Amino acid sequence: MLVIHHLGISVSERVVWLCEELGIPYELKIYQRDPKTNLAPAEYKALHPFQTSPVIDDGDVRLSESGAVIEYILNKHASEQQRQSITVSKDDKDYADYLYWEHFTDASLHGSMMLNSTVMRLTGGQIEHETLKNLANRLYLGYEMLEKRLKNRKFVAGEKFTIADLLLFFPISTMRNFIPIPKSLDNYPNVKDYIQRLGDRDAYKRTVQKADPQRGFVSKL
Amino acid sequence: MLVIHHLGISVSERVVWLCEELGIPYELKIYQRDPKTNLAPAEYKALHPFQTSPVIDDGDVRLSESGAVIEYILNKHASEQQRQSITVSKDDKDYADYLYWEHFTDASLHGSMMLNSTVMRLTGGQIEHETLKNLANRLYLGYEMLEKRLKNRKFVAGEKFTIADLLLFFPISTMRNFIPIPKSLDNYPNVKDYIQRLGDRDAYKRTVQKADPQRGFVSKL
Repeated sequence: MLVIHHLGISVSERVVWLCEELGIPYELKIYQRDPKTNLAPAEYKALHPFQTSPVIDDGDVRLSESGAVIEYILNKHASEQQRQSITVSKDDKDYADYLYWEHFTDASLHGSMMLNSTVMRLTGGQIEHETLKNLANRLYLGYEMLEKRLKNRKFVAGEKFTIADLLLFFPISTMRNFIPIPKSLDNYPNVKDYIQRLGDRDAYKRTVQKADPQRGFVSKL
Repeated sequence: MLVIHHLGISVSERVVWLCEELGIPYELKIYQRDPKTNLAPAEYKALHPFQTSPVIDDGDVRLSESGAVIEYILNKHASEQQRQSITVSKDDKDYADYLYWEHFTDASLHGSMMLNSTVMRLTGGQIEHETLKNLANRLYLGYEMLEKRLKNRKFVAGEKFTIADLLLFFPISTMRNFIPIPKSLDNYPNVKDYIQRLGDRDAYKRTVQKADPQRGFVSKL
């Protein structure tokens, strides 16, 4: 049985969500953050040397890193039909876009959000250094791309819900509990609708109900 | 014909390297950084809305993001045999480790390096905030993991050179031209040997010769 070590209100909600979308059985072990510091408890940090969420166990295999965990589950625990239902095949017209958004989220958007938040905290917004300013502002390029991409599209890869949406949802919704940047999403109406649409999925509602029941259904906009 | 838009001394060297490893034909378009600011020139930024390297063209498809570009080339331009030669199959004992390191590099290590560098630049090393300190220090957890992983292993996934190595090489070697952190690699002898071993590959030497001939063969340790 697949074991998901879920750190409360964290990126491991993606793994629970994937299993709920596809109906893959799993055992859930929940760890709560320190109420004062919001950091992971010592037991969670001890699970993996990089000390980040998500972490899964599958027999002798212990694995971390969202992209790796999702690919592992799709290839080891999902049927070919299940896998195809949530990915885009290489012969599909949306294949390159799917790949882009699938990789963009954790490799670029997440880092840009962390960097922006850190720079703002340390400078109070007064950034003199040109390179640093460019890096800190890159996050907004990401939001602008996403806003444009979601015009007349329900999902980021194209016509169906895929792994690219499943990855993207966390940084633009749940992560706003920790780092609410941009401060407002009013300039990104398509992104707002998209967050609502994804948060309304039955599998996501079950995810929150099981993994973070104290939070309520819809992620903070 | 696949077109690789290569920004000098940047992450797009990975794409050239992949094609050199597998013998996939490509056309190289080289763009030089501004000699004063080290930033990409306006023509490079104009290629893609997120303004980062790498960028490729393949007919009507324009694609960015290392992980996406590599997966795209493997699935659209490589034979099944070529693809297998540089990846690890899901039934292999090293599969989970391969997935971990493949995803870890851009999703976690790169961001930790950028964050550490930024925090150090802005604070001069005096970090009061506990969460920020943890984030800035995470990079060293990554190096420790890698050092341990490379004990008695030639490559990070296991016995053969894979996409995981191809991704990992840039942040621990070439990126040291911009952000030399950790300052010294003396505490990581296995990592140093690994950098030397990867830099000595014929396909990598051809990559530097074609993409960044002014740099010389071996990346800065």
